[in-house]
Amino acid sequence: MSSRLSLNQGTVRTATLAEALDACVEVGVESIGVWRDRVEPIGLDEAARRLSDSGLRLSSLCRAVFVTAPEGPERRAAIDENHRAIDETATLYAAAAAGSTAMLVMVAGPLAPGERDLAAARGRVRDAIGELESHARDAGVRLALEPLHPMFAADRSVVSTLGTALDLVEPFPKETVGVIVDTFHLWWDAQLAADIARAGREGRVASYQVSDWITPVPSDLMLARGMMGDGHIDFATITRSVAATGFDGDVEVEIFNQEIWDSPYVDVVRLMRERYDALIEPYLRSDES
Amino acid sequence: MSSRLSLNQGTVRTATLAEALDACVEVGVESIGVWRDRVEPIGLDEAARRLSDSGLRLSSLCRAVFVTAPEGPERRAAIDENHRAIDETATLYAAAAAGSTAMLVMVAGPLAPGERDLAAARGRVRDAIGELESHARDAGVRLALEPLHPMFAADRSVVSTLGTALDLVEPFPKETVGVIVDTFHLWWDAQLAADIARAGREGRVASYQVSDWITPVPSDLMLARGMMGDGHIDFATITRSVAATGFDGDVEVEIFNQEIWDSPYVDVVRLMRERYDALIEPYLRSDES
Repeated sequence: MSSRLSLNQGTVRTATLAEALDACVEVGVESIGVWRDRVEPIGLDEAARRLSDSGLRLSSLCRAVFVTAPEGPERRAAIDENHRAIDETATLYAAAAAGSTAMLVMVAGPLAPGERDLAAARGRVRDAIGELESHARDAGVRLALEPLHPMFAADRSVVSTLGTALDLVEPFPKETVGVIVDTFHLWWDAQLAADIARAGREGRVASYQVSDWITPVPSDLMLARGMMGDGHIDFATITRSVAATGFDGDVEVEIFNQEIWDSPYVDVVRLMRERYDALIEPYLRSDES
Repeated sequence: MSSRLSLNQGTVRTATLAEALDACVEVGVESIGVWRDRVEPIGLDEAARRLSDSGLRLSSLCRAVFVTAPEGPERRAAIDENHRAIDETATLYAAAAAGSTAMLVMVAGPLAPGERDLAAARGRVRDAIGELESHARDAGVRLALEPLHPMFAADRSVVSTLGTALDLVEPFPKETVGVIVDTFHLWWDAQLAADIARAGREGRVASYQVSDWITPVPSDLMLARGMMGDGHIDFATITRSVAATGFDGDVEVEIFNQEIWDSPYVDVVRLMRERYDALIEPYLRSDES
């Protein structure tokens, strides 16, 4: 492959799958991370056909639904939904160009209403992975647990650091369950280099996602990410750490940002490629000086 | 002492020192954490006199200025300013009721403009403490480094976890340099219990500050704190961890929140006391069941 850059569809949130694929082809981006809610309007078969026609690799399917609900109908529905998401990942992956891994992104989920026990909620994440793992293995899909920034600990992900994610996935086969290193979520952590090295030793680096931390922090925290180079993150250092693990997969750019969403798709993808080529790609090679 | 509750003046941000002291006396709060910018309008001598007249303890002076500027005039001015803050802490402490420790709160500071090297910035924090430590020791003042939530890593504190704070203060005498456990900043951390225990073993727990994490997160992150009980934090567990270290100092309530700032001071202090008595105080006793 000539470039490992992948457009996560979240970066062009308002584009249809067809529009996102076209923008990638036009700019020479060879891989895409697909969102399920962009597949739903056209159906899985049509999405698979379009992906196949595009010639792109599939770097991930985003994403499994939250799995922190306590036992009961809500939890059962979430597990069922994630079984379907595993099958969708396998179907889309089979239609995509070769060279990537079939991967389903998992975000843990929030505390239950009124709950204050983070450890218990994390335990429910582990239990959910335990319920899904054998199906994922049979389907040839890797589950990739993504720790989110601690500012989302109450309402989106009780898993906030790479170290915590690694602890949670420890009981499961590394071939089926990995973790995601996302710069926006993890850049601040003084343990990050050590935890990335640990993830490498334990064979858990499933994906590397890049976007920047910008200030002042936008008022909607969900839309607080920036294009690489517009913020404070040291991509050279983090990328070197990831490369040193032997990670050789696609690198996803996932940016939730209203200004970027309001820009023409092709312009966004072109800028993304420029920044990736300048700030990320040089440090992915183990022989870079 | 009958209660270890302390009002951090940040909780009644618009009150003068006199108004804050009066509210404490009226509600039976016996200790206060004073802000330098509330001392400045009346001068240090007058502030000391009012503090003495109130009969309250001084739980801390807030705060030293940021110390992450690279070497140069800005850094020299910050170090000088913090030498003055050490002296002010000693002066105010001498005027306050006995039973607390003279303590100056330190918040690390941001990355330098354009800088992306968190490790280097953290090194400058350590260097600054090294410059201030002997003066603090001579003045009988303890420097208390407060890790802030990772969402402030770029623009307010490159020190984001208790573990990182403990690593930074390691070279210095524990009597003169400690760390602050603040629930709002640290509650999400799966390593928190272990790090509090480590802080205890290493004799570094200088202060325990409490406020809650509320959702949805207010758009101004600086004003995102809530009254204990209004959010997601498990105060029982964290307070037990702090108590288990043998910490026997005052417990500060520090809440930056516009709605609270807009309420009558005495109402705020009364509510703070009710919540403290229900949610914190029972877990401070090592013999609680």
